Amino acid sequence: MAWSPRRSAGRRLQLPLLCLLLQGATAILFAVFVRYNRETDAALWHWGNHSNADNEFYFRYPSFQDVHAMIFVGFGFLMVFLQRYGFSSVGFTFLLAAFALQWSTLIQGFFHSFRGGYILVGMESMINADFSAAAVLISFGAILGKTGPVQLLLMALLEVVLFGLNEFVLLSLLEVKDAGGSMTIHTFGAYFGLILSRVLYRPHLEKSKHRQGSTYHSDLFAMIGEASRGVVGTIFLWIFWPSFNSAPTALGDGQHRTALNTYYSLAASTLSTFALSALVGGDGRLDMPILESKLKVQDTCGVHNLHGMPGVLGALLGSLVAGLATSEAYGDGLESVFPLIAEGQRSATSQAMHQLFALFVTLTFASVGGGLGAFPLVPSTLEGSP
Amino acid sequence: MAWSPRRSAGRRLQLPLLCLLLQGATAILFAVFVRYNRETDAALWHWGNHSNADNEFYFRYPSFQDVHAMIFVGFGFLMVFLQRYGFSSVGFTFLLAAFALQWSTLIQGFFHSFRGGYILVGMESMINADFSAAAVLISFGAILGKTGPVQLLLMALLEVVLFGLNEFVLLSLLEVKDAGGSMTIHTFGAYFGLILSRVLYRPHLEKSKHRQGSTYHSDLFAMIGEASRGVVGTIFLWIFWPSFNSAPTALGDGQHRTALNTYYSLAASTLSTFALSALVGGDGRLDMPILESKLKVQDTCGVHNLHGMPGVLGALLGSLVAGLATSEAYGDGLESVFPLIAEGQRSATSQAMHQLFALFVTLTFASVGGGLGAFPLVPSTLEGSP
Amino acid sequence: MAWSPRRSAGRRLQLPLLCLLLQGATAILFAVFVRYNRETDAALWHWGNHSNADNEFYFRYPSFQDVHAMIFVGFGFLMVFLQRYGFSSVGFTFLLAAFALQWSTLIQGFFHSFRGGYILVGMESMINADFSAAAVLISFGAILGKTGPVQLLLMALLEVVLFGLNEFVLLSLLEVKDAGGSMTIHTFGAYFGLILSRVLYRPHLEKSKHRQGSTYHSDLFAMIGEASRGVVGTIFLWIFWPSFNSAPTALGDGQHRTALNTYYSLAASTLSTFALSALVGGDGRLDMPILESKLKVQDTCGVHNLHGMPGVLGALLGSLVAGLATSEAYGDGLESVFPLIAEGQRSATSQAMHQLFALFVTLTFASVGGGLGAFPLVPSTLEGSP
Repeated sequence: MAWSPRRSAGRRLQLPLLCLLLQGATAILFAVFVRYNRETDAALWHWGNHSNADNEFYFRYPSFQDVHAMIFVGFGFLMVFLQRYGFSSVGFTFLLAAFALQWSTLIQGFFHSFRGGYILVGMESMINADFSAAAVLISFGAILGKTGPVQLLLMALLEVVLFGLNEFVLLSLLEVKDAGGSMTIHTFGAYFGLILSRVLYRPHLEKSKHRQGSTYHSDLFAMIGEASRGVVGTIFLWIFWPSFNSAPTALGDGQHRTALNTYYSLAASTLSTFALSALVGGDGRLDMPILESKLKVQDTCGVHNLHGMPGVLGALLGSLVAGLATSEAYGDGLESVFPLIAEGQRSATSQAMHQLFALFVTLTFASVGGGLGAFPLVPSTLEGSP
Repeated sequence: MAWSPRRSAGRRLQLPLLCLLLQGATAILFAVFVRYNRETDAALWHWGNHSNADNEFYFRYPSFQDVHAMIFVGFGFLMVFLQRYGFSSVGFTFLLAAFALQWSTLIQGFFHSFRGGYILVGMESMINADFSAAAVLISFGAILGKTGPVQLLLMALLEVVLFGLNEFVLLSLLEVKDAGGSMTIHTFGAYFGLILSRVLYRPHLEKSKHRQGSTYHSDLFAMIGEASRGVVGTIFLWIFWPSFNSAPTALGDGQHRTALNTYYSLAASTLSTFALSALVGGDGRLDMPILESKLKVQDTCGVHNLHGMPGVLGALLGSLVAGLATSEAYGDGLESVFPLIAEGQRSATSQAMHQLFALFVTLTFASVGGGLGAFPLVPSTLEGSP
Repeated sequence: MAWSPRRSAGRRLQLPLLCLLLQGATAILFAVFVRYNRETDAALWHWGNHSNADNEFYFRYPSFQDVHAMIFVGFGFLMVFLQRYGFSSVGFTFLLAAFALQWSTLIQGFFHSFRGGYILVGMESMINADFSAAAVLISFGAILGKTGPVQLLLMALLEVVLFGLNEFVLLSLLEVKDAGGSMTIHTFGAYFGLILSRVLYRPHLEKSKHRQGSTYHSDLFAMIGEASRGVVGTIFLWIFWPSFNSAPTALGDGQHRTALNTYYSLAASTLSTFALSALVGGDGRLDMPILESKLKVQDTCGVHNLHGMPGVLGALLGSLVAGLATSEAYGDGLESVFPLIAEGQRSATSQAMHQLFALFVTLTFASVGGGLGAFPLVPSTLEGSP
């Protein structure tokens, strides 16, 4: 194809100009709308008045940092897996995350901490912004290698808005519990990305499919490759997942319980995975080849296995647990876990139905969003953007 | 040797079936016996009643996580050292640890937190279970490459019980102090494994001894190889050892002091190691070749140098410090460090004797356990299991 | 050059003997002068008396550990970049840090926590000692490959003293704010090292300059190499910088605010860097080649870009912010940020002048120190020490 030099130069400038535009707009919006939350503000602070709000920072900070490590180191290295896309995908990961978390601070702040004309930010804003970035990176994993950084930034621009809207509908309007972000992060991020991937489906990608994980040429890659097969990859989960799951939970014994449950669940699933892998035999993988051949979805990073199905499963189990919640089982704790049931505003069955409906809402937002997000990307993709 | 296909298939099923059996049995025992400890239980929790027990979770969680990182990342990578055993040893590390920490929650819970027919679990259960897994992994290091995963799981089944029994005798019956787990973790784990290694001694392993660390073919391995020689390997210790040592200590200034002591000890030993390495010269290693040639113990990972001798040394120093403890030196703090001396129930000399006796008990448990554990492993090992 | 064997042996003994001498002297000084601070001392501790001082340990420990990780892992790996100097530079990093933090505990303790004839140590001593080690490692980065370990230890011996003196002048005499250690750590460490590098300038080093980052031969190195170009290298900053910056801040909302600011600054600078790199084009680097060609300073690790200029910039912005500080903007918080302005002892303009003067003092200490430190190193360097 014959490209004019001018057009090529224009293309080369797209990414930096979009970055500058987005960063400039974000900076202006921050300057106008964002203020320190009460417990962060120097103007409201007294020495000696060392309140629970201060302690909360110290109690939350380590979990925040673990979430941060999972998102930046974990996703960064996951993206390095597929040699084809090389190291640049690590760069895009940072770029996407850096934009998503600023943009998400504005969107989530608008929905959750908009007081007196200002968005108030603090520790929880950082944790929530990181979770929003996690959903964007999950979607990124589903379309890795199919589109360029400009398209990815535009995708993030849209996805963060829908993420915030979905989260607001679920947590504030439907008042459902979303333990571990099953629905808001994993289900939403995965199906947004998978629908995008379906729309961007390109048959000729199949020909180079064998390159997606085969020609590792160093031990490092071989090792990371092994990791992706379910054994060594657990390192990150072992160390950081208890924090990831407990970070958005209310302070106190809820976080303690979440950490404990994640810890023993990881231990139990390690033995079970070993057993199942060895029983199924061969290369020890439990494959889901069905996606690409039947549904024309190319899921290069296994996003459906890692986030989509587990997210839906978690949502269904959450609904089941809500349906079985009784004041006998939870005692006074019911107030903190399912306050509407405790206050008699909802029956356990009604809460369970709300939870199921929330899953439906999430899948709808993700599908419509993924579909909408895809259309502007298709033309530029067909032109062969990198 | 002519193996029938049926026998080979049976052999292939051993590991998955054992995993399923152990995980199933553990799950049932958890369901029957394990309950949340008071401060973790939703039924006993009130918002606003943010007690010290809740804070304890936040104070202990970072150390727990560091212990976890040392055990999973640290041991995992240590096992990758010896190229011969390759990446599968990382998988076994996780498998062993995952089983050991569940099994140990039951055993240690039975000894330490069995109330009203239930084992109560919380933050401390997780830390203690991790320490028990550490002892199992230390023993694993001593017999790496000599036996298969089925045998390793059986070893862990036995070792965790003896670990719990030894710990109970030392801490609850003899009421001794075991700073940094010198006796219960390092001495016990090392000698249990070394005795096992002695019983499993196979002369023909010597021929391939030169492969134990020589033919690294990538920079990663070369770097990790360097690490094993005492310089770079200190990274993990520098970052995580203060937490590892202080995690089992009582909350408060005891942990503060332990972290401080570990910090300066590491700094001082770095300079001393540099000096001694350079003085001894050659390749800068202080070798202990004596074990294999004289005692027919193959210590592929240097478990004796890293855990055995330092553990015994720590135990002896602990006895010495107990013998020198006076209320003048410790003041009111004597109550928290050596309560029996503070209350006048034991003289300092008597406490020192108890500490020495505890070392003797630990060595006995480790030796008898290692010997017992070895016999069932010998036949399958001789048959040439992987 | 014909060296006699005796001279060569003497040279080989220099490092171990210097290590032993320094470690011996340090140990003696610790035994004579260093005591546990009040909140660490077992003699002053009561169960039930769980004071704020105890909580402080738990609030500060995670940041301390992150600083530690940045210094040991971060600097360690930064030093591995330049293949020419290989893994031994990691060893020197540890050696230097291990000495610097002990020596600095004595120097800083003498200036800041000398009570009743004793230096009292605790959590803050560890954090401050780590920061002092950071300054030494920054200087090390500027002269990497130009001198041997004996010379580096002597440099650290001098630099830690001047670091402590400069810090004392700035914080205790001039009573200026030094957010993020802009002046005491980054400016001081960078210019101390750069002046040293200028004095040690060796023209023939230029010939092998192309080896400074080009012949990576493994993916690991290629990846770490990429990292050094501003994209992947941000991992460490993303995870640990919020802690690094907030660690020396007063407990409470000051740390919260610092973490928040660092978090959003990193996000914003990621997008901006992407944009600028792509605009400037070519290999995407913003080079400062000017240093070596014009000023005959060889800055192998980019210390001037990473620490020198940003440190000076931070100091200038700090002065500007002080000049704009009003009680309207800060409210009661002014007391904790600029106490002298709040108490009316200084005008905002006067505080701004003090801040500027502090930068001048720092540059003077660094230059004179770097110049002084260089002279004893020159002869041994010219002789061709490794």
